[in-house]
Parts: sequence; C-alpha cells; structure tokens
Amino acid sequence: MAGGVGARFWPMSRKDHPKQFIDILGTGETLIQSTFKRFLKVCPAENIYIVTNESYKDLVLKQLPEISEEQVLCETSRRNTAPCIAYANYRILQRDPDANIVVAPSDHIILKEEVFTEVILAALKASRENDWLLTLGIQPNRPDTGYGYIQFEEKEACDTDNRIKKVKTFTEKPQLEMAKQFLLSGDFLWNSGIFIWRLKTIMQSFTSYLPDVDQLFRAGVGKYNTPAEPAFIEQTYAMCKSISIDYGVMEKADNVYVLASDFGWSDLGTWGSLYDIRKKDNDANAVVGQNVMMYDSHNCIVNMPKEKLVVLQGLEGYIVVEEEGTLLVCRKEDEQQIRQFVNDVMIEKGEKYV
Amino acid sequence: MAGGVGARFWPMSRKDHPKQFIDILGTGETLIQSTFKRFLKVCPAENIYIVTNESYKDLVLKQLPEISEEQVLCETSRRNTAPCIAYANYRILQRDPDANIVVAPSDHIILKEEVFTEVILAALKASRENDWLLTLGIQPNRPDTGYGYIQFEEKEACDTDNRIKKVKTFTEKPQLEMAKQFLLSGDFLWNSGIFIWRLKTIMQSFTSYLPDVDQLFRAGVGKYNTPAEPAFIEQTYAMCKSISIDYGVMEKADNVYVLASDFGWSDLGTWGSLYDIRKKDNDANAVVGQNVMMYDSHNCIVNMPKEKLVVLQGLEGYIVVEEEGTLLVCRKEDEQQIRQFVNDVMIEKGEKYV
Repeated sequence: MAGGVGARFWPMSRKDHPKQFIDILGTGETLIQSTFKRFLKVCPAENIYIVTNESYKDLVLKQLPEISEEQVLCETSRRNTAPCIAYANYRILQRDPDANIVVAPSDHIILKEEVFTEVILAALKASRENDWLLTLGIQPNRPDTGYGYIQFEEKEACDTDNRIKKVKTFTEKPQLEMAKQFLLSGDFLWNSGIFIWRLKTIMQSFTSYLPDVDQLFRAGVGKYNTPAEPAFIEQTYAMCKSISIDYGVMEKADNVYVLASDFGWSDLGTWGSLYDIRKKDNDANAVVGQNVMMYDSHNCIVNMPKEKLVVLQGLEGYIVVEEEGTLLVCRKEDEQQIRQFVNDVMIEKGEKYV
Repeated sequence: MAGGVGARFWPMSRKDHPKQFIDILGTGETLIQSTFKRFLKVCPAENIYIVTNESYKDLVLKQLPEISEEQVLCETSRRNTAPCIAYANYRILQRDPDANIVVAPSDHIILKEEVFTEVILAALKASRENDWLLTLGIQPNRPDTGYGYIQFEEKEACDTDNRIKKVKTFTEKPQLEMAKQFLLSGDFLWNSGIFIWRLKTIMQSFTSYLPDVDQLFRAGVGKYNTPAEPAFIEQTYAMCKSISIDYGVMEKADNVYVLASDFGWSDLGTWGSLYDIRKKDNDANAVVGQNVMMYDSHNCIVNMPKEKLVVLQGLEGYIVVEEEGTLLVCRKEDEQQIRQFVNDVMIEKGEKYV
C-alpha cells in the first residue's frame, strides 16, 4: 500500500512525492525501496503488487525498476485501505485463487529485518493452515498516543506458535492516561497495520462485512488485466465509499488473530517518531544536514538541505525542517498541528506548497 | 563612514554587502541611500565624502550615482573610526581648510528627518562659532545596554542654544543596572556617534591626542587626489593602529560638547533594535516576507525572502532570518551571541557564508 500523502511529514512529504518515496532516514533508500527489498526475502519480485494513487505510478516504476507496470495497481481517488485491498484481491484472484497474502504499508520502518522475515514466514505458515485474519502486533515500550492498540486474549490460540493470540478488541489512538493503562496491563499490543491472510479468507470477510465494496469490485471480473481495467477502476472508485480495513473488517470479524512480535517497528507517522529512532548527538538533537550549527539547543529534530548553512540557537524540543524552499519550525509536542498547517497552506497559499 | 561589516545583523548583513547597503527596513532605500538623502538637505552632493572599505567602492558608486569616484575614500584595511576621520580630514584640507564638518555613520536610522536637519544646522552653527568637538546626544527612553552613554554638566554652555552642554564623561555600553541609574539620573544621553566640528578643531585634536596617527596621514600631503594616493593609503593603513575616535580623541579632549536632541534615532546595531522600530502585528511579531504563517508565536522578528513559504509555530521572542540561503534562528535576548556565530561560521564553514 503506497497511496498515502503523509501530511504529518510536511514539508518534507509533499503531495507529489509523499513520505514513502523519500529517503527519510538518509540511508540512500526511500521507504518504499526498503519495504520492497524486505519482501524480496519472502517472495519473488513478480509476486509483489503495489497499490498506489495513479499520480504516483511513475514514481513507483522509477524507484522500483524490478516491478512491471502490470504490478502497479492505480487508484483514481483516495478511499482508505479497504477498497485498496479489495482491488488487489481481485487482481490476485485471477492469478492464484489459493494465494497466501501479506498486506503491508510501504512507508513503515523496520529495524530488525531478520526478525521481521522470520515473523512474516511464521505468520504465512499460520494463515496457510488456519482460516484466520492475522495481524502483526508490536510489543509496546512506551504509552504512545499515536498508535492504535490491540487487546488479546490470554490463552494461547496456536499449538505451533505461542506468539499468536486471539484478538479481543481494537482500540483507536488513546489518550495518554489510557495508553499508560494499556502498557501496564500487559495485554495490549500496537497495531502495526500489517496483515497476513489467505485470499479466500479475506474475500470471505469482505462478503460478510463489506458486501457493498465487494460487489463493486466483483463487477470487474473479466476486466482486470485488460484494457478495460483503468476505466472500470475509475468508475468503481468514484462510487466506492472510503473505509479502513480495520474499521470495515478487522473490528467486526471473529476470526482475527494477532502475532505479538518486536522487530524494531515504527509507522514513522510523525516527526516525533522519526526523532525517536534517529541517532542523536550529545545534546539529544537529531540532525540531518551538513552545515547545521546548533547552540543551546536540545531534543530537536532538524532536516535541512545538505549544503544549507543553518545556525540554530535556544531551541528546546523543536522540529526544524526545510524542503523545496519551504521552512517549518514547530514545537515537537505540537506536531499534531502540522496537518492543520498543511490545510491552511493549501487554502491560503495554494496547492503548489503541499 | 560606510566601512563596517555589520556582523550583528548576520545573515542579512554579509561581508560583501553589509547592512548599510541593504534596504533593511523595506522602504525601497538602503541605509546609505537614506543617509545620503538626509544630508542633501544640509549640503550639496559634491561636499559629501564616503569613507569605506575599498571592497565596497563599487557598491557605493552604484547605490549613490550622484557621487563621483573622487568622493569615495577607500580604506585598505579596517582601522576603526579615528584613521577614517584622519584620512577624510587631509582630503578636505586640500579643498577647504576652513571647512565645517559633520561626521556620521551611514547605517543609522533617523525617523524625524526635519528635526534632524534642524539639529545638524544648529550644531554646524555652534561649531562654526566655537572651537568645540560637538557630538549629538540622544535623550534615552529606556535603559538600553547596547549604547554608549554621555554624561553632561548641568550648566548651560552655549548662549544661543540651551540644548548644548559640556561633556563630563563618556561611558561604554553599561550593564543593565547601571543603565537604569543613568536613565533615572537624567544627565546621561546616548552617544549617537555623529560628530560636528571645524576641520581646524579636529585636526588640532589629532595633533594633541593621536599624534602618531596624524603624522602617518600628514605624510601624504601632496599625494592626496593624485595617482599616488592609493599606494600611499595602502601603506599608511598597514602601519596605522586601529582606534576609535571616541577612545582616541573624545574621551581625552576637554573641548567636547554635546547637543541633546531626539530625532527618532537608532544605530540599528542589532535585530532587537530593528524589532523595536518595526511595525508589529497583533501578536507583536515584526514580519518581513509575504508567505510567513505564524502560529502561537509572539515578539518575534522574522525576515524571510519574499516568496518563501515559512510556517512558524510556538516561538516566543525569536529572531528568524534567512538571507542568501542561510538561516538563523536565535533567541532575541541572546542576540549578542550572533557575533560569535559569525566567527564560528567563518572558521568552520568558510568565508563564503559571512
């Protein structure tokens, strides 16, 4: 899934090249390139499909030269994750009705790649053997209010893998006090948004819980992978409601299981989450930029163009980012306001800045 | 006098175009252009001499097309104000030994131009009639620690102008407590650094208090205004000590008088002093830049390139300036550190940034 706009990472993330297409960690790879490489350890390149907005098609093909045009599924409008998955399901159905699938966002970061590969293989094994909707849950280490939480049942659900538990409830991003309770209780995990299931299982779930969405995409059988597909998709997306797979399926189904794991995961949703995983200097500043000079400043995340000379003094806990000639200075603790800034910028200054 | 580098206004003020050559108020005129115009009300253009560093000669001629090359006196190294005045003295001596002179920095701001013209004419009248070294003192309205102070004697010194007093002492930039005492006492003025004297009077003072400097420049008589002048000046400046007219002459002479006045003066020495005179918005922010959006920010001075999109959030009392691709963010109350930043930048990043 590579269709997001990454508004909370503005001004680095822009509508015409959102965060998944950026080398946000400075590793030399964009996030989607890292995600792609990660899955090459699990399956061959020809089995990887990218669902994205049509406006990013060229970016995907450029950043992932191993991918053919046929593997890039282009959405014509933004409809959240459920339609995205329904579309992919019907494309995969045509090729392999017995497919066993991993659904993953393209813009997450995973630090422990080997653990991740092992977890994915274990999850694929479990989903192959069971009629489960399996999700990866992350062992939380702090009361993060930026993530959704999954509560699981105590008793083991799987004979062969004791990390797999039945899901009791999904919880949206909680307030701090509640997040602290979740952490203390020990039976909550972060919701990574990475899913593993057989095609048959997820298609059955759509029929049960999102029959309207399913019907819309079912009508395309016979058109997928033909010249008629783009027009059909445009029409279908125009009619389809916008709904997440979590809300539309996972929170309603009773065959939802979670595999608890810890592979150095972050959804990199905000500058703050990037700060958390970046290397910090002695003043706890995480700085990208070769000519950034900091004085009396601590706990800042700074992203500046390579050559730009920047002198920062007296900043405690700020985000300082410049990208394509647009500068943002914002308190880290107020980063949830960035969405609002982007909105204001679009209205007051125009599309070209967002 | 137009030879300063304006380090405290970095990064707007740069070595290759310091503050006097910048339209720092956004009025459409650079500071030196405003200063030049101001003096056209007092004397004809051909009587105005600009002493500057040779590297600014072209800038002066470009910004003041009414000035001929012969009127730009080029210094080959930075030696503070006394040598600058000595050089001008010998040039003026050649043309008019009876000259009555105003010496003024080119980078000050004066809001009440008419009052200023009247004050200058009154001062010229007094200096013509008396063997005085006259300086303009500004009625202080706050305990500013960025200015030098002049203490004057109570009794009137001039029959025809009761604003003129004999100077008791000069004081360097004081600590805040002392500045408050100065303000309370009522017999201290700010030292504007604008001087009025007859050529004969100031030359006599050089002979008395800075004989070594005087001798160096006296050796050039016969060379001034000839092709031999540049080489002579280069040699002379290399040998000459660096010393201010305040320290070298004014603090030592006993014929020093001050004319107390108030013509909306600022030496624009720092970003803070610019903030004080700028128009502020409802949040007390003084902003230059057409695409600057401020959130939860107060008491800031912001100078951004016209078109640049900038979003600032959560800043209280900061300087935020970008010029030629260099960004400075600094607490206003810590602006005295800017000199140090410029120094560090020069050492660590090279001359091109300062």
